[in-house]
Amino acid sequence: MNPLSSTARTRLGRLPERSTEDRSVLHEILDDGMICHLGVVVDGSPRVIPTAYGRLGDTLYVHGSSGASSLRAGPSQEICVTVTHLDGLVIARSLFHHSINYRSAVVYGTPRLVTDPDEKLTGLRVVTENLTPGQWDVARKPTRKEMAAVSVLALSLDEASVKVREGGPSDDDEDYALGVWAGVVPIYQTFGSPDPDPVLRAGIPVPAHIARRVTS
Amino acid sequence: MNPLSSTARTRLGRLPERSTEDRSVLHEILDDGMICHLGVVVDGSPRVIPTAYGRLGDTLYVHGSSGASSLRAGPSQEICVTVTHLDGLVIARSLFHHSINYRSAVVYGTPRLVTDPDEKLTGLRVVTENLTPGQWDVARKPTRKEMAAVSVLALSLDEASVKVREGGPSDDDEDYALGVWAGVVPIYQTFGSPDPDPVLRAGIPVPAHIARRVTS
Repeated sequence: MNPLSSTARTRLGRLPERSTEDRSVLHEILDDGMICHLGVVVDGSPRVIPTAYGRLGDTLYVHGSSGASSLRAGPSQEICVTVTHLDGLVIARSLFHHSINYRSAVVYGTPRLVTDPDEKLTGLRVVTENLTPGQWDVARKPTRKEMAAVSVLALSLDEASVKVREGGPSDDDEDYALGVWAGVVPIYQTFGSPDPDPVLRAGIPVPAHIARRVTS
Repeated sequence: MNPLSSTARTRLGRLPERSTEDRSVLHEILDDGMICHLGVVVDGSPRVIPTAYGRLGDTLYVHGSSGASSLRAGPSQEICVTVTHLDGLVIARSLFHHSINYRSAVVYGTPRLVTDPDEKLTGLRVVTENLTPGQWDVARKPTRKEMAAVSVLALSLDEASVKVREGGPSDDDEDYALGVWAGVVPIYQTFGSPDPDPVLRAGIPVPAHIARRVTS
């Protein structure tokens, strides 16, 4: 596998120990997420929009309404896609050393508007399957008209940076004597019991690919 | 309370029914979150960084290392701060109508670098308390040197937009006859049991303000 690129903005000057050039970690962070925050520049100003995405190899797909301004600004203009997992609150003895355990991936690049019908379908499948694995084969496929109503952007994972903060607090030597609790409060994202559509036809059980996601 | 502003970029052309001008909803979404995604423009390109924040009245505070490039780009330049809650996966009968239940707040503005020592301390308290309510009074306060090592930005909530998507799927009439399960898979963010620092002094219990956050 190629290492991650090391451009000026993906090299971490401040906390290099939180950086990693491991491409598999990038993939893992992206695959563990459900929404990204997509940054675009509109009239010189930053705009950050949450949206669904999916990864296939070293390509990230995002989709949206063909009319969405966040996507209109996309093709031929640089974007930034950030995926963050909040893993825990790091409680230190001093306020200064409080921190957050997290994993984040930041991808920079100029996206390509996907026009090839096969790749567009692939992009939509990848986004759908990232949210709900197994769902693509079950639900009704998009019609030609529905396909026209969505835009799919492809972004290469060529330029990306990964940051991971894990573990407990790191306090100043003299503060370890303080009578202050310190440690980590873990944070999880969990799935609740599926809530059927009130007008769901009788006799349709929750399918296995959805039931198995529920956090027990 | 003032209604939210309605500038071109905070008016929602595409899905106006998901917009709301209710300022209390904006406050709620911000207060429910722990990290925001901060968008800045660096050399003409967008950059989106996850960071901690807190709200006091109609001011949002973010902080970071005095040397962090994301904050260096901040003062006197416009930023965008987005907070998103992922509430559920909306499973429809057709792939086209799959959606996500979410609440998001997008705030635009030019932040002010907080230089007044009292307000800077207030900003840090607000950020700390947003992550761990009750912690500010317990941990060791910042020294003068520690204060100098962090920057605090204040962003007014004057220009903001809120989007909320809730409820079940909305399918095309003819698709309700399909034998496909439809509904919502709820998503929660939960706190696990606090994990004490391995070198925590003996006899220091988990304080009540932390214990009470744990999801039972």
